[in-house]
Amino acid sequence: MIKVSIMYPNGPGARFDHDYYRTRHLPLIQRRMGSALRYYTIDKGLTGGAPDAPVPYIAMCHLICDSIESYQSGFGPHAQEIRADIPKFTDRTPVRQISEVVVENSAASVTAARSPLAVDA
Amino acid sequence: MIKVSIMYPNGPGARFDHDYYRTRHLPLIQRRMGSALRYYTIDKGLTGGAPDAPVPYIAMCHLICDSIESYQSGFGPHAQEIRADIPKFTDRTPVRQISEVVVENSAASVTAARSPLAVDA
Repeated sequence: MIKVSIMYPNGPGARFDHDYYRTRHLPLIQRRMGSALRYYTIDKGLTGGAPDAPVPYIAMCHLICDSIESYQSGFGPHAQEIRADIPKFTDRTPVRQISEVVVENSAASVTAARSPLAVDA
Repeated sequence: MIKVSIMYPNGPGARFDHDYYRTRHLPLIQRRMGSALRYYTIDKGLTGGAPDAPVPYIAMCHLICDSIESYQSGFGPHAQEIRADIPKFTDRTPVRQISEVVVENSAASVTAARSPLAVDA
């Protein structure tokens, strides 16, 4: 499983419409990618490491897909349309990264290990 | 709900022991934080936005907590011990950010909305 992280750098006077991002932009990505997108998450930056430190990224989303290939096949044909939507909510240029998901959810792993459906070896 | 993102910048010759990070460092954080930590995720950086672009972060983790206060009460007393563990797996200094979780899992939201346990208004 892979995670595509799209991170919008903060900066003086940065413009970002969190409402549009949540209600329009990510749903657009979801509609266009269809089943190639397992799910997504959205974060709104609050603070840096210390409570009074500036926040590095004003917002982020993470797209979870089965593989790089499934991401590319789902996103690629719609990349131009999706990127053309970005100026509607921000003047920032995002940093993008593709990661391997090493641990998707540590609590879910524990739950699975303790599942009553588990079969003894 | 909040997410604490800890991101290790990539760079020439960067050292990072992904195995130690997964099997020792994050479990240490989990033990020390106890119930203040709902769950965590771990990402291993693969590529930047383009397949041949350098990856911005060599690794990331995200700690999910109920609130900034619960994170601080769980992490704060152990911050010194946890940070002293960092040189054991990397020579990088992480970027830290606290975000509001706007959408935790878009698929889970859909599932919940369609749950047979949902009560009609």
